Amino acid sequence: MNTMSAAWDTLAIQSLGECKVANPLPYCRFVSDATLLRMNVPEEDLPEPTEELIYCDFQMAGPREKIYFDPSKVKCAIVTCGGLCPGINDVIRSIVMEAFHNYNIASCVGIRYGLQGFIPKYQHDLMELTPRSVADIHQFGGTILGSSRGSQPVDQIVDALERMNVSILFVIGGDGTMRAAKAIQQEVAARGRKIGVIGIPKTIDNDINFVSKSFGFDTAVEKATEAIDCAHTEAVGAYNGIGLVKLMGREAGFIAAQSVLALKEVNFVLVPEQRFDFEGENGLLPALERRLKSRKHAVIVAAEGAGQDHTGQSGEKDASGNVKLGDISDVLMARIKGYFAKRDMPITIKYIDPSYIIRSVPANSNDRVYCGFLGQHALHAGMAGKTGMVVSRMQDRYVHLPMELVTDKRKRLNLRSDYWRSVLESTGQDPITNIFRDQTCLS
Amino acid sequence: MNTMSAAWDTLAIQSLGECKVANPLPYCRFVSDATLLRMNVPEEDLPEPTEELIYCDFQMAGPREKIYFDPSKVKCAIVTCGGLCPGINDVIRSIVMEAFHNYNIASCVGIRYGLQGFIPKYQHDLMELTPRSVADIHQFGGTILGSSRGSQPVDQIVDALERMNVSILFVIGGDGTMRAAKAIQQEVAARGRKIGVIGIPKTIDNDINFVSKSFGFDTAVEKATEAIDCAHTEAVGAYNGIGLVKLMGREAGFIAAQSVLALKEVNFVLVPEQRFDFEGENGLLPALERRLKSRKHAVIVAAEGAGQDHTGQSGEKDASGNVKLGDISDVLMARIKGYFAKRDMPITIKYIDPSYIIRSVPANSNDRVYCGFLGQHALHAGMAGKTGMVVSRMQDRYVHLPMELVTDKRKRLNLRSDYWRSVLESTGQDPITNIFRDQTCLS
Amino acid sequence: MNTMSAAWDTLAIQSLGECKVANPLPYCRFVSDATLLRMNVPEEDLPEPTEELIYCDFQMAGPREKIYFDPSKVKCAIVTCGGLCPGINDVIRSIVMEAFHNYNIASCVGIRYGLQGFIPKYQHDLMELTPRSVADIHQFGGTILGSSRGSQPVDQIVDALERMNVSILFVIGGDGTMRAAKAIQQEVAARGRKIGVIGIPKTIDNDINFVSKSFGFDTAVEKATEAIDCAHTEAVGAYNGIGLVKLMGREAGFIAAQSVLALKEVNFVLVPEQRFDFEGENGLLPALERRLKSRKHAVIVAAEGAGQDHTGQSGEKDASGNVKLGDISDVLMARIKGYFAKRDMPITIKYIDPSYIIRSVPANSNDRVYCGFLGQHALHAGMAGKTGMVVSRMQDRYVHLPMELVTDKRKRLNLRSDYWRSVLESTGQDPITNIFRDQTCLS
Amino acid sequence: MNTMSAAWDTLAIQSLGECKVANPLPYCRFVSDATLLRMNVPEEDLPEPTEELIYCDFQMAGPREKIYFDPSKVKCAIVTCGGLCPGINDVIRSIVMEAFHNYNIASCVGIRYGLQGFIPKYQHDLMELTPRSVADIHQFGGTILGSSRGSQPVDQIVDALERMNVSILFVIGGDGTMRAAKAIQQEVAARGRKIGVIGIPKTIDNDINFVSKSFGFDTAVEKATEAIDCAHTEAVGAYNGIGLVKLMGREAGFIAAQSVLALKEVNFVLVPEQRFDFEGENGLLPALERRLKSRKHAVIVAAEGAGQDHTGQSGEKDASGNVKLGDISDVLMARIKGYFAKRDMPITIKYIDPSYIIRSVPANSNDRVYCGFLGQHALHAGMAGKTGMVVSRMQDRYVHLPMELVTDKRKRLNLRSDYWRSVLESTGQDPITNIFRDQTCLS
Repeated sequence: MNTMSAAWDTLAIQSLGECKVANPLPYCRFVSDATLLRMNVPEEDLPEPTEELIYCDFQMAGPREKIYFDPSKVKCAIVTCGGLCPGINDVIRSIVMEAFHNYNIASCVGIRYGLQGFIPKYQHDLMELTPRSVADIHQFGGTILGSSRGSQPVDQIVDALERMNVSILFVIGGDGTMRAAKAIQQEVAARGRKIGVIGIPKTIDNDINFVSKSFGFDTAVEKATEAIDCAHTEAVGAYNGIGLVKLMGREAGFIAAQSVLALKEVNFVLVPEQRFDFEGENGLLPALERRLKSRKHAVIVAAEGAGQDHTGQSGEKDASGNVKLGDISDVLMARIKGYFAKRDMPITIKYIDPSYIIRSVPANSNDRVYCGFLGQHALHAGMAGKTGMVVSRMQDRYVHLPMELVTDKRKRLNLRSDYWRSVLESTGQDPITNIFRDQTCLS
Repeated sequence: MNTMSAAWDTLAIQSLGECKVANPLPYCRFVSDATLLRMNVPEEDLPEPTEELIYCDFQMAGPREKIYFDPSKVKCAIVTCGGLCPGINDVIRSIVMEAFHNYNIASCVGIRYGLQGFIPKYQHDLMELTPRSVADIHQFGGTILGSSRGSQPVDQIVDALERMNVSILFVIGGDGTMRAAKAIQQEVAARGRKIGVIGIPKTIDNDINFVSKSFGFDTAVEKATEAIDCAHTEAVGAYNGIGLVKLMGREAGFIAAQSVLALKEVNFVLVPEQRFDFEGENGLLPALERRLKSRKHAVIVAAEGAGQDHTGQSGEKDASGNVKLGDISDVLMARIKGYFAKRDMPITIKYIDPSYIIRSVPANSNDRVYCGFLGQHALHAGMAGKTGMVVSRMQDRYVHLPMELVTDKRKRLNLRSDYWRSVLESTGQDPITNIFRDQTCLS
Repeated sequence: MNTMSAAWDTLAIQSLGECKVANPLPYCRFVSDATLLRMNVPEEDLPEPTEELIYCDFQMAGPREKIYFDPSKVKCAIVTCGGLCPGINDVIRSIVMEAFHNYNIASCVGIRYGLQGFIPKYQHDLMELTPRSVADIHQFGGTILGSSRGSQPVDQIVDALERMNVSILFVIGGDGTMRAAKAIQQEVAARGRKIGVIGIPKTIDNDINFVSKSFGFDTAVEKATEAIDCAHTEAVGAYNGIGLVKLMGREAGFIAAQSVLALKEVNFVLVPEQRFDFEGENGLLPALERRLKSRKHAVIVAAEGAGQDHTGQSGEKDASGNVKLGDISDVLMARIKGYFAKRDMPITIKYIDPSYIIRSVPANSNDRVYCGFLGQHALHAGMAGKTGMVVSRMQDRYVHLPMELVTDKRKRLNLRSDYWRSVLESTGQDPITNIFRDQTCLS
Repeated sequence: MNTMSAAWDTLAIQSLGECKVANPLPYCRFVSDATLLRMNVPEEDLPEPTEELIYCDFQMAGPREKIYFDPSKVKCAIVTCGGLCPGINDVIRSIVMEAFHNYNIASCVGIRYGLQGFIPKYQHDLMELTPRSVADIHQFGGTILGSSRGSQPVDQIVDALERMNVSILFVIGGDGTMRAAKAIQQEVAARGRKIGVIGIPKTIDNDINFVSKSFGFDTAVEKATEAIDCAHTEAVGAYNGIGLVKLMGREAGFIAAQSVLALKEVNFVLVPEQRFDFEGENGLLPALERRLKSRKHAVIVAAEGAGQDHTGQSGEKDASGNVKLGDISDVLMARIKGYFAKRDMPITIKYIDPSYIIRSVPANSNDRVYCGFLGQHALHAGMAGKTGMVVSRMQDRYVHLPMELVTDKRKRLNLRSDYWRSVLESTGQDPITNIFRDQTCLS
């Protein structure tokens, strides 16, 4: 059994100081920092791929017997950043409910519109968060706080935290946001302030390292399959009908892959992790032609980040620092139409882009339960004086991770995994082995 | 009470000949051709708008005591044309079930891929339709027969009908298809053949004259509201967030209008029937600016055919003879971004186009019941030797209409109606009265 | 064409007095009391069944050019009574929005927990209703006002209306509630007060006379079909599996009938309107045996009021004055088990009672649009000084009806109608003709 | 780190013999029997509760480089037993697709109606399973094979397997079925036959040991929350309204507990694992009274196996050997009504029992993906000559478990866990601590 010694130290969780306050919760059982949970780390989370089983010891999430803050003096702040994701309101609700009902903290404020809400020039008001004000918010998608993309000056953020006398800041956002959170925590430490910074990683693309499945992902896949189902219906409804669906997934094809597994009607799946050719022996277009000739219809699912080498993208970046993507669906439409026009083979393409529909719906039951635990564990960690860490569910367990672990590297589909093989198998035998055979793996 | 004497004669339904065969159905009650149902005709169905109440007498749908065909020798054919619509499979299933279980007809065939299926050069096989083969098809969206757009030579179609010994042809399609069905019926008549041609009008846009609400429309609106709900969530989730949804509706804004009534979160609705200005006192953009300044978010719903005078469309036509539309969403995005960039007012636009999702889902319960009756009444009409007619539900009643009535003119939103006023009210008071005040009605 | 002269006079709508105030709405077009809409009345709404087509002239709903009340002094009150139904909150929301946004009335209060809310001894607080407080309520099922069953002293109710200075009372409830509303209106008139009483008929059972389809019915059917689908799955999943579903429908089987049409998997449907025998040539049990022997599974749908002659019901009444029903599902289970036990034929029965699930869900899009219009038209009528009337949608048109018309008699399934024949056909050929053949119609 | 040495040996997986056939799959990577995965075992799976972290080494699921059977001679058989569960058809489909598309086996048969299908006297036909015949079955709930409860003579079952020349038998069922599967495997071994027996554990109650979450559970919870939502709506809709929901869960309250976490509107949750008193200081009824007095409505969720000491159950057993339960909902209704009648406090109870609705719906996306992997891994195991084992997902990993491990003991809610504490917290602060405080844990 191979333990990951190099990474071992990096799993240590920072703390604001010694915990001396008795936890007010009437628990049967508390979790101790000393008890570490040894878990196998999936290959895709490792810095270098390996076939060996690598294990790490993780700090377990949960309430501590002694906490750092005196609840009666605690003021929490919550901020939500980046794109929407099903379940954000559930996390907010859970933090607030746990904070007031179980820890009896003094107050909780919501920062409006992401990190902008800290910066005076934007003049966004704060939102007072109470059990009453958040009671029904889980019924709605999105975030009641609003969100924004991009970074803001760290010193102004920490100034704001000081002015507001915040004890614990909860940051819900993607890897860019977690980097900002880390910077905030470091600035807080540099100023010698006792403000905890706890992250709850959020991504619709499920590409966060050391998070088995990010919250909202299940819900997004459920909605994505509806779009694919429609594309299949459209494809079947026409002679040589082609249903094309573009799904979210800038650098990782998890939504596309999982949707393919959930709905068995997809014949071609294109993801950012695996490049493909349009023409030639292993090309998509000849395979598509064979498929149409044998079955008269086909369904293609493309992650938005797939085939970027075909789009002539400029490399320009948006406000969050993400590279602007070329539109793979335009390229696919043009290439498919051109190919079959040249062969005088009539086809009908129906293109569906569910876009934001998959991420702005309310969370399903599974995600709601998940988000409830994320919020509770974030609060337990914050009250115990942890900082510079995120709460994660790995393999059904809730653990604490140092922020660096989730920001160092984005998770991508492991093209050598059993999971990806199942995805390819699901898309059907012949065409796929032709397209993807002998292809160079990109990951 | 004003009866519509001019149109009176046009409501007569053609017949293949005298009905002499006893209807095999064990009915308590049959419907007589002599009993006409007098109904008020909605203003939007009239050739000329008028505030007067106009009444017409309609032939009622239902089983006739005497029928024209000997069931044991009847062969039915069903063809589905044009775009998909929720409920097509339900109509097919209903015709087949009624034909076999109640009339005990000899056989029923499905024509594949629209009118193409009649033309030898396409080499599409026929599909044998039996109660067993259609038993589960209502669980799926689309059409099991496949569809295609565009017309085919009428003489070849009638040749095919003759070769196949078809007694009754059921045509499910839009107004273009109904014109083709009329031509088929006329060619059949010219050749002196006894083949009935019965239409079941289909349109996702709900723009068929003398059809209160076309089948599948309810289902489509239900799905459309999901997209709008998401757009609203996205809009609220950003500072000055704008959710923009494009919905089907080439020449008529019924889906947009009904969705606005069903979901109360829309602030601006743009439909083909009403032109609008971007700038100026009544312009969309200043109104949008006012809305954002007061509420920080806005939701816009645009039918695809809205604002065509702004798109620089070429007037080119597609295979079905429909004018190719310019993309109003591109124009809206560009104009909105330009307007606010000039004013240095940061905004976030999220664009959602549910496209085919709203039309390829299975029918909801309401549409299923509706389609069941359409199919049954189409068969009753066909067995009774009616031809050149369509089955329609007007104001909760099933009636026979001459094909001309539904093809002469497409229905459009009546901008002077109580219905449209409610739509505008639903989008909110201030912005709307500014935009649309004093505007010239187009209808 | 036969006009219903006897009923003609009863269609007159009462008024509080002459309308002298200009309607503040910026309408293109108002509706005049003088313009009556002639419509055919469905047979089931008539006092006596007849095959003749009977027509009546109805007062049309809509805004009047002159109104009775000065909006700036109007106080509205809304009360919801009886069982829940999808869409009640939509009606409330619509009344409030129309009242404040378009008529600019002074205030609107909600009466809590039905008629109890008027009676001092219950000490229920009033609920202030404003556009802000009702903005999101359509997202939730049920009624934000709460409800209760049973009557309350009319004089105390009118005392309360006087104390509160209510101008218009909107009553949402069933036929019992409409009788109470009529009594309130008469007491108001006897006291010479100028308080309008407007009803919006509500029933999950769709058994209101002169209402084509009551609001919430569509939604309820949609949910009911889910339960039937599950029963079918359970039935198929066992050898000689029987899926039994009980649905709402105390005196009318509309939900059962419509669900059968919407989901084609039901083999036996039992409704209050048609008695049946268990044993004998036309009995349910032998027919069930034949069905099982040929297909190995069966689905039975029973309205709760079906087969009451088999339940040994006592005739006792509940708080709303409704007869307490015997439990037909118990009887069915016992009789079916006994019958097959005697024949040593192993069966598996799975019983599903969705009960309140079908009525407490939020309204679907179709019902939302419908409820929006009901609320608006109720307010138009109230502002115009109408009283003692209800708003109804008949055959896609909104009309005013005198309260007596909807309370005189409950609507029941017309067993001689095309509609019911389709229901029976849908349940399958052989068994049904055996069971129900030669049966006496009860309606 | 404590490894579970006692259980270590029991984790060995039996095999039919040495694997000498090359796996026909074009894999990058195979799984070796030698590589064991060390995982922490959740406390509720352990024979004795302990706060220590216990680890075991598990054989990993996945394709083996060498397999035992020659695919071209393999005949698979699939049987489904016990109650329905979302996803059964997905498992069947996955086994069949993997078997034919990837291993190219010779044939696959479905055994009808559970173990009965093996026994000649029942005369159930076999069902030929092919990729074509199973292509669409995931769209439907239930099992296309049918099911039955109870055991059948093991020797006759093995006789049938021999007669049919089955190589691998796949058994989908609960713990009783897994005991039967174990007996079959032992009889096969005693006869010296080379027939693999692979189990896929199924339970809607999620009470299988060493299975983190059983397939279909997620879907069931999603449906269960709909029923609770309706109960909440009904409760709010009446003064002192009480919504009571009974959910599946004979000996384990997982569905109830998870639903409470997913929908935050439940005030009291009753599960089999924790007894409760009706009256007295910690009683349910006084707590309910306090709740009603403060909030005017309450929602109670009871697992069907809760409070059995209050039902006077007889201890009788059904065909599957399960103890027949007393009806806790009857007891609850009676006790609640009695309690408040005595206090002259008017209440309204609305009882909802979704019963089979939660288990006979089609699987959601999450469960579909899960079932796909279960089927594939079952086939990999079977082809590799494993026997007497089940496929399980533990903490996101698919592993092989000896059958004994899942049949020895049923999993129950761990009342000392963080999970259960969250459930109680979710039901609200005051009432719950009163009811369940100082109660003896039953587990």
